[in-house]
Amino acid sequence: MAEHQGRRRFLATIAAGSTMAAANRLASPAVAQNQPQLSWRLTSAFPDSLEVMQGAAEVFVKYVAEETDNKFKIRIFPAGKLAAPIAAADAVTKGKVEMAHTASSYYWGRDPTFALGTGLPFGLNARQMNAWMFEGGGLELMNEFYARFNIIAIPAGNSGCQMGGWWRKQIENLDDLKGKKMRVGGFAGKIVAKLGMIPVQIAGDDILPALTKGKLDAAEWVGPYDDEKLGLYKGAKNYYYPGWWASGPMTHIFINKASWDILPKAYQAIVTTAGAMANTTMLARYDAKNPAALKRLLRKGVQLRPFSKDIMEAAFAFAEDFYAETASSNRNFKRVFDNWKQFRADQYLWSQVAELGMDVFQAQAVNRS
Amino acid sequence: MAEHQGRRRFLATIAAGSTMAAANRLASPAVAQNQPQLSWRLTSAFPDSLEVMQGAAEVFVKYVAEETDNKFKIRIFPAGKLAAPIAAADAVTKGKVEMAHTASSYYWGRDPTFALGTGLPFGLNARQMNAWMFEGGGLELMNEFYARFNIIAIPAGNSGCQMGGWWRKQIENLDDLKGKKMRVGGFAGKIVAKLGMIPVQIAGDDILPALTKGKLDAAEWVGPYDDEKLGLYKGAKNYYYPGWWASGPMTHIFINKASWDILPKAYQAIVTTAGAMANTTMLARYDAKNPAALKRLLRKGVQLRPFSKDIMEAAFAFAEDFYAETASSNRNFKRVFDNWKQFRADQYLWSQVAELGMDVFQAQAVNRS
Repeated sequence: MAEHQGRRRFLATIAAGSTMAAANRLASPAVAQNQPQLSWRLTSAFPDSLEVMQGAAEVFVKYVAEETDNKFKIRIFPAGKLAAPIAAADAVTKGKVEMAHTASSYYWGRDPTFALGTGLPFGLNARQMNAWMFEGGGLELMNEFYARFNIIAIPAGNSGCQMGGWWRKQIENLDDLKGKKMRVGGFAGKIVAKLGMIPVQIAGDDILPALTKGKLDAAEWVGPYDDEKLGLYKGAKNYYYPGWWASGPMTHIFINKASWDILPKAYQAIVTTAGAMANTTMLARYDAKNPAALKRLLRKGVQLRPFSKDIMEAAFAFAEDFYAETASSNRNFKRVFDNWKQFRADQYLWSQVAELGMDVFQAQAVNRS
Repeated sequence: MAEHQGRRRFLATIAAGSTMAAANRLASPAVAQNQPQLSWRLTSAFPDSLEVMQGAAEVFVKYVAEETDNKFKIRIFPAGKLAAPIAAADAVTKGKVEMAHTASSYYWGRDPTFALGTGLPFGLNARQMNAWMFEGGGLELMNEFYARFNIIAIPAGNSGCQMGGWWRKQIENLDDLKGKKMRVGGFAGKIVAKLGMIPVQIAGDDILPALTKGKLDAAEWVGPYDDEKLGLYKGAKNYYYPGWWASGPMTHIFINKASWDILPKAYQAIVTTAGAMANTTMLARYDAKNPAALKRLLRKGVQLRPFSKDIMEAAFAFAEDFYAETASSNRNFKRVFDNWKQFRADQYLWSQVAELGMDVFQAQAVNRS
């Protein structure tokens, strides 16, 4: 309650006008002024069951509090409490909450440019995504776009490349995909449909029953650690890879821009670096937890299978066509996409040399040793 | 000068005893007390010419200052000014400076356990290194070791997998390596010597003349961006990959432990997250800068060549033997290494599936598109 009132007071300050706030910031700084007491609210777009993804927001909030001696408190509200995942960005836009932890791509229906913030199918890997965001102009371009929605974004996590989902039957080639019903996230459904499949969107808890009853032929979720918790291996044993629709999906803290603009510069820097810690931690946790989960799944009889080359190439070609079409009809998308596409080309030119050469060697040498 | 005096005052506070400092921290916090004015000194172990590596310390220092409204100032001293690179850790141990930005492996001669902090040859890649450090127990284990030297470390950067260096002649197999003089960093020289080569340690600026005159047959430095600046392509045209001795080398901020212990908790959190931002930024900058440098080098007639499989496998086997020997005679090394080796095995088990599957596909699909 106290927090809530604190927030109201702070929103009242915002309403008093950002000009005044800016003037305050320029004034000779008294310590108390530069370290105001704040109580903000953050709506999570991720279910608690995705504890690693959701946990990045906890890391973020913990560091912001520690760095400010608990003067800047951010309370996390679970998905659906204040805003549904699909409404999280809107809640930030309208100032219902100051922050959300979300996948930008959830809002691709409003404008496909949102998808670029998380990562397009056949996009960058997690490391390349950081390079693009922080040093390739990606974050500036995306924030220019988000500003239309009164949002400023800070990278806050990544799952790494996801898996290609659980399939009741083996799929050898493109023909095997025709007519298959697959649970798959929003934007990727566009490409999946071009492969002749029927994309279905249902919540995490509903996947296993649908898969078991044959209402779904396939379903993707995240990777070994999260998929194991949903028990998806009980509904289908063929575990395909890679999840080409999620090669390095990044999450963000979305911040109401008016709230951000009146933050003292020190708090802005604190939020930015707490985001960097969350971003690093989510990926590190997934990397630390996935191997053991994969081993457990294999012991349960799960069959790892790669998508065939013709499936991968057809999906890649459909994706490229779809991006070209979207860029030709949407200037927001085109502005970011043109930069992203050149960056992606450059990244794979370089990363295939030392990095990929080393990874390919190590994968066989270490696993044999 | 003011900074220097500030530092002296702060050191005097340290001398007054950490017990008092701890008691102060428990006392009801007044704002001024929790945000003391500090002026610290950081010695860099990297030459200014390695501006991306060195730049991570600048990112770190910039964020610490911004987050504290310039109350916590850290001044960077270039390598050699206060301490030579090889003496940077010692300067921190003795409290000559509060901080250093360095590669832990520079001190492997004192104890090979230091090499694990940066990464052993045939070690983890940059992303796996983060996973091990932050979520695999790596940082706790290393800090337990560094405590013997009155040091606490915070990850602060990574170059990604480096290149295998510049070779005057093509090398096809193990026989071609015999008797070759190669400029190569410290710890890796142990493995290089087992391959029948003669490892040589010379400073960056001396490499090109030695290579041109044939005093060296080969030389490694970092990767395309840094190597181009030294002009190494003028001395040898065969650019080999991968740099198996540096698969994901991490740099750290080394902090004098007594200085760290009396930092207010908020400052400790600020230093930690500023480190996370430096860590992310260094890798992102290398990734953003290396592709263009690689393209320029290729236009100058540089020949990219992979090390042959028999060379890689022989080096891997020598490295594994060397680690086993070292672990059997050094308990510090064994304690960290045992954890690291299991973690590496688990990482490659998992990363070869979705991540590597995607990277391999993308490398050919994107480069063709």
